[in-house]
Amino acid sequence: MTWTLTKSELDHETLLLNESLLSLGNGYLGVRGNFEEGYHEAYTSIRGTYINAFHDEIDLQYGEKLHGFPDIQQKIVNVIDGQTIQILIEDEAFSLFEGEVIHFERNLHMDKGFTERIIHWKSPKGQEVQLHFKRLVSFITKELFAIDVKIIPMGPIQQVKIISTVNGDVSNFVDKTDPRIASGHAKRLHVVEAEQQEQWSIVKNRTYATELEVACIASMQVTSGNYQYDSKATDSSVEQTYTFEGNGTIHFTKYNVYTDTLRHGEAVIDKAIAVQQQLAATTFEDLLLEQKEYLDHFWSKSDVAIDGDKRLQEGIRFNLYQLLQSVGKDPVSNIAAKGLSGEGYEGHYFWDTEIYMFPVFLMTSPEIAKNLLLHRYSILDSARVRAKELGHTKGALFPWRTITGPESSAFFPAGTAQYHISADVAYSYIQYYLVTQDEAFLKDYMAEVLFETARLWADTGHMHEGQFRIDSVTGPDEYTCIVNNNYYTNVMAKHNLLWAVKVFHLLHEKDSNHLQQLINRLELTAFEVQQWTDAGEKMYLPYDETYKMNAQDDSFLQKARWDLENTPKEKFPLLLNYHPLTLYRYQVCKQADTVLAHFLLEDEQDIETMQNSYNYYEQITTHDSSLSGCVYSIMASKLGYKEKAYAYFNETARLDLDNTQGNTKDGLHMANMGGTWLAIVYGFAGLRVKESGLSFAPFLPDEWNSLDFHVQYQGRLLKVHLGRDVISYLVVEGEGLTICHNGSSLYLENGQEVKV
Amino acid sequence: MTWTLTKSELDHETLLLNESLLSLGNGYLGVRGNFEEGYHEAYTSIRGTYINAFHDEIDLQYGEKLHGFPDIQQKIVNVIDGQTIQILIEDEAFSLFEGEVIHFERNLHMDKGFTERIIHWKSPKGQEVQLHFKRLVSFITKELFAIDVKIIPMGPIQQVKIISTVNGDVSNFVDKTDPRIASGHAKRLHVVEAEQQEQWSIVKNRTYATELEVACIASMQVTSGNYQYDSKATDSSVEQTYTFEGNGTIHFTKYNVYTDTLRHGEAVIDKAIAVQQQLAATTFEDLLLEQKEYLDHFWSKSDVAIDGDKRLQEGIRFNLYQLLQSVGKDPVSNIAAKGLSGEGYEGHYFWDTEIYMFPVFLMTSPEIAKNLLLHRYSILDSARVRAKELGHTKGALFPWRTITGPESSAFFPAGTAQYHISADVAYSYIQYYLVTQDEAFLKDYMAEVLFETARLWADTGHMHEGQFRIDSVTGPDEYTCIVNNNYYTNVMAKHNLLWAVKVFHLLHEKDSNHLQQLINRLELTAFEVQQWTDAGEKMYLPYDETYKMNAQDDSFLQKARWDLENTPKEKFPLLLNYHPLTLYRYQVCKQADTVLAHFLLEDEQDIETMQNSYNYYEQITTHDSSLSGCVYSIMASKLGYKEKAYAYFNETARLDLDNTQGNTKDGLHMANMGGTWLAIVYGFAGLRVKESGLSFAPFLPDEWNSLDFHVQYQGRLLKVHLGRDVISYLVVEGEGLTICHNGSSLYLENGQEVKV
Repeated sequence: MTWTLTKSELDHETLLLNESLLSLGNGYLGVRGNFEEGYHEAYTSIRGTYINAFHDEIDLQYGEKLHGFPDIQQKIVNVIDGQTIQILIEDEAFSLFEGEVIHFERNLHMDKGFTERIIHWKSPKGQEVQLHFKRLVSFITKELFAIDVKIIPMGPIQQVKIISTVNGDVSNFVDKTDPRIASGHAKRLHVVEAEQQEQWSIVKNRTYATELEVACIASMQVTSGNYQYDSKATDSSVEQTYTFEGNGTIHFTKYNVYTDTLRHGEAVIDKAIAVQQQLAATTFEDLLLEQKEYLDHFWSKSDVAIDGDKRLQEGIRFNLYQLLQSVGKDPVSNIAAKGLSGEGYEGHYFWDTEIYMFPVFLMTSPEIAKNLLLHRYSILDSARVRAKELGHTKGALFPWRTITGPESSAFFPAGTAQYHISADVAYSYIQYYLVTQDEAFLKDYMAEVLFETARLWADTGHMHEGQFRIDSVTGPDEYTCIVNNNYYTNVMAKHNLLWAVKVFHLLHEKDSNHLQQLINRLELTAFEVQQWTDAGEKMYLPYDETYKMNAQDDSFLQKARWDLENTPKEKFPLLLNYHPLTLYRYQVCKQADTVLAHFLLEDEQDIETMQNSYNYYEQITTHDSSLSGCVYSIMASKLGYKEKAYAYFNETARLDLDNTQGNTKDGLHMANMGGTWLAIVYGFAGLRVKESGLSFAPFLPDEWNSLDFHVQYQGRLLKVHLGRDVISYLVVEGEGLTICHNGSSLYLENGQEVKV
Repeated sequence: MTWTLTKSELDHETLLLNESLLSLGNGYLGVRGNFEEGYHEAYTSIRGTYINAFHDEIDLQYGEKLHGFPDIQQKIVNVIDGQTIQILIEDEAFSLFEGEVIHFERNLHMDKGFTERIIHWKSPKGQEVQLHFKRLVSFITKELFAIDVKIIPMGPIQQVKIISTVNGDVSNFVDKTDPRIASGHAKRLHVVEAEQQEQWSIVKNRTYATELEVACIASMQVTSGNYQYDSKATDSSVEQTYTFEGNGTIHFTKYNVYTDTLRHGEAVIDKAIAVQQQLAATTFEDLLLEQKEYLDHFWSKSDVAIDGDKRLQEGIRFNLYQLLQSVGKDPVSNIAAKGLSGEGYEGHYFWDTEIYMFPVFLMTSPEIAKNLLLHRYSILDSARVRAKELGHTKGALFPWRTITGPESSAFFPAGTAQYHISADVAYSYIQYYLVTQDEAFLKDYMAEVLFETARLWADTGHMHEGQFRIDSVTGPDEYTCIVNNNYYTNVMAKHNLLWAVKVFHLLHEKDSNHLQQLINRLELTAFEVQQWTDAGEKMYLPYDETYKMNAQDDSFLQKARWDLENTPKEKFPLLLNYHPLTLYRYQVCKQADTVLAHFLLEDEQDIETMQNSYNYYEQITTHDSSLSGCVYSIMASKLGYKEKAYAYFNETARLDLDNTQGNTKDGLHMANMGGTWLAIVYGFAGLRVKESGLSFAPFLPDEWNSLDFHVQYQGRLLKVHLGRDVISYLVVEGEGLTICHNGSSLYLENGQEVKV
């Protein structure tokens, strides 16, 4: 079984890549897979520890600043470094870049929740040791990042010195050549406290602008070896030194506990010490057991088992594991575009959450999915403010990029102009309701979000010759910005508007008092609800008679087609090689746009139209965005293009593992990781969730022997098996259920596998 | 006659405004109308001296920088201050903000080319003096800015001390709240030399990035009064002190000579001393005589005489005078958007030159007009580079904002995307050729510019269903950016393309050797020329059947109309109060767009179409740009809307004098100043220049008794008189000429006034 990712490279590029691939996290805390002892001085390393949503604000600079351009940008900060452990064998510092590496192996155990390095090393002077590093970021105690180290001398070594550091003098990474990574403003927090207090190395930092605080408190547990101890604090760091004499095995564990203002309030040090005290009797073995238990539960609901291709099996497991490591599990946080594995995209939350990652959790861990929606609800007021800044009298415009609510996008044509994010948020609320039937949630959160986003659309669009049109927005495809009647935007807005009306009537029926309170609080008028109905029902959806398909927008099909065939390979991704204006002038797509709309709202068009769209747009899509391939895979499955479905899936499943975009070093492509799961469950298995219920239209790729996965639905756990000769459904938990299989109803009794 | 502008205000706001209104310049050097002795400390003053095109470069900052965004921005710098003269009456410093101002008056003499301040002042301690300041920036010796001061004691004053300073510690002005003014990067040059050498105070500065040098050398000529002399140099300034004893009149002149690297090469100090030496025997009276002579000549060709409205007479004279003061007269320089009167728009050259100011010089001082075209020719290589950066394989894309060629626009939707500037440049070349028939110019410059701009259009647009379409550009109206088939752009590109073909054939006919050389140098193919013909002939010009007019672009008329009536006054200009995306979503125009195209190329549409366009667009145009009113005036004249023509003219004529845009303090609105003249000559008199010749369609506004002006045309000087009862034409210089008057041919013999 492919539960372990193994790496043994020591070259510069791969090490940098592996820092992302072997990163550890739990949704709160993330640590890149750096070496405790550091690197060769000529190597670049992005040494990073991140806390989800822990950020500073930087002033945005514009050569020309127009009204409503954001003044500040939120930005995740690299926090205190607790990774560092130096090891001196006699007087030689252990380093994998000197001496002889007899054996080197790194493993990520996705079933057990830890990474390890297994090393056999001979120093330049001939001293030989075996080293075994294990590290974990706990799923149980979210503040904890632990490192366990075993050193076994292979010859007569008289002294081993261990220097364990907690370092507050940290910065973010800078790469001026790539617009997708942060530039400048690297140092965003300073040390306010650094001292050794009893057994605890304490460092506290504060961010410059937001004045958020983070503490890292480290303790060491030495379980074998005799040592002398010393400690030293500088202005910005604390060092503990253990000098071991004699030739025996050395074994110790470093417990780093991270707390922050957003979760722990003002007394971050006290809170961290309290966590340390709770952990006092816990061994690293205990922690490993907890991790295993947590992951057993996770995989029992979330695993996707592919029989017939180990590489793809590895890919989907890795992606699901990283999703779990990245997703925020408190309402303060969401999932950053790069998770907690790097600083790319400044730790911002995008529509990636709603469209690419939320559905995975919705169908496997709905409590985590709910939390993502609660985060959006928590920034609803910011979205209301942003709508006002954009000239709307009412409604909520969700920010394109944000952490705690303010719009952090500095280039509005491919930022704020992507109004569709508000409909995407609404869509995820609707999907949540369909999957959970959570009436309390509908009352407490969903109605308000749907009403406020519906208001946005009513105010953004306008009636023209009997049709409701939405001008000057940008759809998902960022190679064509600021257009009129983007099909994706319009059809998603329609869904948003009509569901707002539906929820209004539902609430009226179920709890009219509550509705009345909401009406009063939002100053909602009956006229508005009528507007939503009209706008939704009369929404203009561009359709082209020549191609019998939906036009991406009003003008897209009149433009010249980009000559993709004759564009040299080194010119991709196009955005790094062409001015946006050049791209806007052509029919060329960065990613799925109309095709994505057909996936999300398949009942809006007949199958021929969707097929024509697919055939047309595929020809002009570069997939320069990692959000594209999975959508093309899903729709290929839907349209019976089995080979394409498999080929696109193949590209998405190992996108980070094989670094096919070339920038995984800056962090993992979380949306694509969600997309892999979607390509299997919504693609191969054809899952859809609608008001009419759960439906499947499964097929097994020819290359595989079988595919197994689970989904949760309205309190049930459903197991789905796609074999070569048989497809079967089993309600493992919960009541019986009628599903739709290839268009026909199928009743599933609890515990009885139904084969078709 | 209204040749003198008189001001006597001493309040904060008006003083700041008057700094712009009373600025002096000669196209090379400009000095704002600051007080020599300074201001009350609570007052803001923009103390400025500028040299046309003398600039530094600053790094442009972007929150998100995409491919092809300019890295640097050129920026005019405030250079060495030679204005400062402090006057101590015994121990009291002369200041208009202390003591008693018995009389205060400032005059700008537009016929004589100088300003003056006439003051009668009583000090807080009761000392009474009369002061008379005169200053001029010489039209003859471009480097010279002279200040003449007379001090007449009105009582027993024993000592007057004069401290004259040349100060190199200067910065640009900063106002963070207005995107139309530069922000940050205020200090852009440092002092490299400051010393007193014999009679000369010498200060030399160097800019930080461009390393351009500017020297200011001041000398003092004392013509009456006995004094003791002293001088003192600091790191950044030189002070000369004259202590006058006794009670007589004091009279002295300060001669500031400015030289710079761009015109004087490396030895800027030596060159400035040489100018000083040439001036040694020249008195201030001599300088005044020279100014008068220069201006007599200028006004004899350029004056517009209005009988019947002194305020408008003052307006048009002031505007023409300021145009003369601002226009660059060497090929290093052009006309900045604010002339040399302020730092607004960073001293950049825009399309304002070609469309709003160039025609004034073309018809009155063609040698100045030619220089403007040579400046554009000098940056043709930069335009070629920019075209490549925008993904074109060939052609020239002129920068939206620049000084010496590089694109300095940081917001491309309302900057680089305004591709029309390349057609605007071509248009001005064509107009120049029509007015001068300068064949050498056609061969040496015009052909190349037209070919390279035609190449741009051929590469930017594309054939679609038999029509040539131009997608993703911005027209003149910046409230709707990045659109397809902007009528203005397309029709101007058509003109550009077909004239390129015409010039190709003309050259072939007249000098095929030269053409062959050009073909070789530009690697021009016959296929390209055929492309230009096809593109020009099949250019798509949007036309709306419902309104029987030209649509501003493909989608404009489908958008919602902005509710201008219910927009509060304080929300104008809209760009300062609404996000651009909000503006893009509506039918609302910052300025004339389609209506401007109808003025420039009136033969492209019939009169009804132009009338429908006018009626429609006028309703939704805010004239938030100062480039709008004059166009509406011209087209109102054309369409017979006499009252409107007069009303719009009224607004433009005194736009700066009355500070109707509220920002004249940052500099004068030069394009509007040109527009005033256009509104008279192209508007009321209906002048047009076409291949068929010169034509007029004149009318005299009801409010006036008469209107007189001159135009130059193909070596002739033509006087035009519009009286209440008679209109007359007179060829003052040059051969007889057939013109077209209200559609009929009219032959004008030299020296014989023809009345119609």
